[in-house]
Amino acid sequence: MLTDYGYEDTYVAQVKAVLISLCPTCEILDLTHGVPPQNVRSGAYLLATATPYLPEGTIIVAVVDPGVGTARRAVAVRGVRHAYIAPDNGLLSLALRDDPPQCAVALDNPRYHLSEVSATFHGRDLFAPCAAHMANGVPIERLGTPIEATTLVSLPDIEPEFRKGVVRCKPLHIDHFGNVVFNLRRDRFETLHRGTGAAVVLIGKDAHETPLPWVRTFGEVEWGAPLAYWGSNGYLEVAVNGGSAARTLGIDNDSLLEVRVAR
Amino acid sequence: MLTDYGYEDTYVAQVKAVLISLCPTCEILDLTHGVPPQNVRSGAYLLATATPYLPEGTIIVAVVDPGVGTARRAVAVRGVRHAYIAPDNGLLSLALRDDPPQCAVALDNPRYHLSEVSATFHGRDLFAPCAAHMANGVPIERLGTPIEATTLVSLPDIEPEFRKGVVRCKPLHIDHFGNVVFNLRRDRFETLHRGTGAAVVLIGKDAHETPLPWVRTFGEVEWGAPLAYWGSNGYLEVAVNGGSAARTLGIDNDSLLEVRVAR
Amino acid sequence: MLTDYGYEDTYVAQVKAVLISLCPTCEILDLTHGVPPQNVRSGAYLLATATPYLPEGTIIVAVVDPGVGTARRAVAVRGVRHAYIAPDNGLLSLALRDDPPQCAVALDNPRYHLSEVSATFHGRDLFAPCAAHMANGVPIERLGTPIEATTLVSLPDIEPEFRKGVVRCKPLHIDHFGNVVFNLRRDRFETLHRGTGAAVVLIGKDAHETPLPWVRTFGEVEWGAPLAYWGSNGYLEVAVNGGSAARTLGIDNDSLLEVRVAR
Repeated sequence: MLTDYGYEDTYVAQVKAVLISLCPTCEILDLTHGVPPQNVRSGAYLLATATPYLPEGTIIVAVVDPGVGTARRAVAVRGVRHAYIAPDNGLLSLALRDDPPQCAVALDNPRYHLSEVSATFHGRDLFAPCAAHMANGVPIERLGTPIEATTLVSLPDIEPEFRKGVVRCKPLHIDHFGNVVFNLRRDRFETLHRGTGAAVVLIGKDAHETPLPWVRTFGEVEWGAPLAYWGSNGYLEVAVNGGSAARTLGIDNDSLLEVRVAR
Repeated sequence: MLTDYGYEDTYVAQVKAVLISLCPTCEILDLTHGVPPQNVRSGAYLLATATPYLPEGTIIVAVVDPGVGTARRAVAVRGVRHAYIAPDNGLLSLALRDDPPQCAVALDNPRYHLSEVSATFHGRDLFAPCAAHMANGVPIERLGTPIEATTLVSLPDIEPEFRKGVVRCKPLHIDHFGNVVFNLRRDRFETLHRGTGAAVVLIGKDAHETPLPWVRTFGEVEWGAPLAYWGSNGYLEVAVNGGSAARTLGIDNDSLLEVRVAR
Repeated sequence: MLTDYGYEDTYVAQVKAVLISLCPTCEILDLTHGVPPQNVRSGAYLLATATPYLPEGTIIVAVVDPGVGTARRAVAVRGVRHAYIAPDNGLLSLALRDDPPQCAVALDNPRYHLSEVSATFHGRDLFAPCAAHMANGVPIERLGTPIEATTLVSLPDIEPEFRKGVVRCKPLHIDHFGNVVFNLRRDRFETLHRGTGAAVVLIGKDAHETPLPWVRTFGEVEWGAPLAYWGSNGYLEVAVNGGSAARTLGIDNDSLLEVRVAR
């Protein structure tokens, strides 16, 4: 389960209660319920960081759903490794990049929903029962009408902009420590620019530029100093050693970062 | 388990460690540990939102306990569906409205407590061992002296005030998204006012009135606009689409809301 | 598991995913993931509060690790009751005081790490696989080079300063309710000063002294009043009845408290 339901309410518990009532043998792993409220972009990133480590065949219920109760589709997608149940709003974009969809359906078969579906809590009334029925062996095809995987909604800007000598990156997520994850993947960058030197520059609101040392780990800079490094999930990150980069450097979801490749 | 112990300490883990040490086969589901500290009213609401979805026969340990160590009673209550272990301070009020008590005892048999009971942490030293022994099959009657269910403490204002043409409501809980839940239940209201039109008006601190559109779901109002709707737990709620109603509209636990029925 | 990874990201879930992938039968109990970021002292206290209640033979994975990726050692320690896997930075200091180390190794055998070890996330890449292999029965000696338990890093100031008639205490931890735990243990104090009266005085930043009533539980002082008491984990604590002592009394990690023993 991954949601933005937070920890102060019983929304998560209601979903789990439905899951274990319908499928008493299921084991539930919390990916996180602390996605910033209604932030589909952070949710998509967070989901993609966890799925590669999950045992094959996991059924993932992901709910960050500002459009609940509107015409947005609810979907189930079977990838090569896992199955996914989520609103069709881009939340699966990054995870499916690494786990290509083999089959997708719209969750429009009411037989697999709770008998009363509220307008605001599809996690409990629709996604949870569909997931429990899948865990019980119901094939994905029975959950609803088949759809083309190519019609699934994609998030904008999940890849950086590659220009001549400059890679322009946008934030994907700000983590618990205030580290900022940018949308540049290590494998992609190293394929294009193997062996070349590069400078990392943070572009502030007033176009003010802050060059950052590009290092391997926190200990290579002074306490309190900023750094850029390849994060443990394979993306370029910006941090402050012993502090919060988001707060110290004033980075928010609209900040930009440039990687300038030496020639 | 439902508590106000939060997630920053090991209070929850100590309770769970006692539970699994005494009853290794028990399965523990967190309802939430994020009840606002010592807020019995929010706790009572949150508990009642989760219990209808739990498998029958669940043993619920609920601890929001500002009176710990004083003369307030600790109780176990067997309802029709579940069993409850809690301080007797109103925390069970709303849950027991839907799951009428069949039997209740004061938890005064020290045989089922830890050998040392601290003055400030009955969750670990008293509630947890009683719950574990119940899960192991000890009948509720052995846990302590029988008490009349009618003597259990009730919370004030769990029902709104029904006057001629006006239902005056108080907040029960402010959720993670800033949505505010008021103490008006859909089934109760619809029994009394089926088919009549009604207006929802929020009364601010200076008696300032804010009329709210009463809709089915968030998508029916503009982004950033307020709305009133029947929430997924069957209570009247006030929200701001894409934002926090508590913050935007300045609602706190003392705010009032009136439903004015058309004639 | 005890970490400072928080609840907003999937760091905890990635560690758990590695654990259950390598050891599908393991059962995971969260001690807390809300240790204040990089606060080894709070982490050491929190760990020690939970370990006495855990079933014997538990494998504890504790990660508060500001030095990740530097030369600090990663260690496994077998105590009398439990086994511990952690960075060697003092995080185990308090727990091992009650569970003396029988054997310790540096986790330097890459055979029991993930195939790629990142520079910033040893919880997932190194501590988790070592713990899973231990749970599968791999003896601690195979995880790496033996080290002397006496060389394990100790935290400063985990005991108060005992002078003539005065015990000078420093904070160990500020909890979810704003209660402040000081480094004076009840059993130690009572051995030294059994039966004597004593006064508790909080020393503010400007050496301003605030005497505190030393009571058994919250109910013995007025709502909103401060108190000192033996907390449920056996340490001296300072609280405000119905409020936050940290906020109300302005206590932070540098505050001092004196216990002045009557003669």
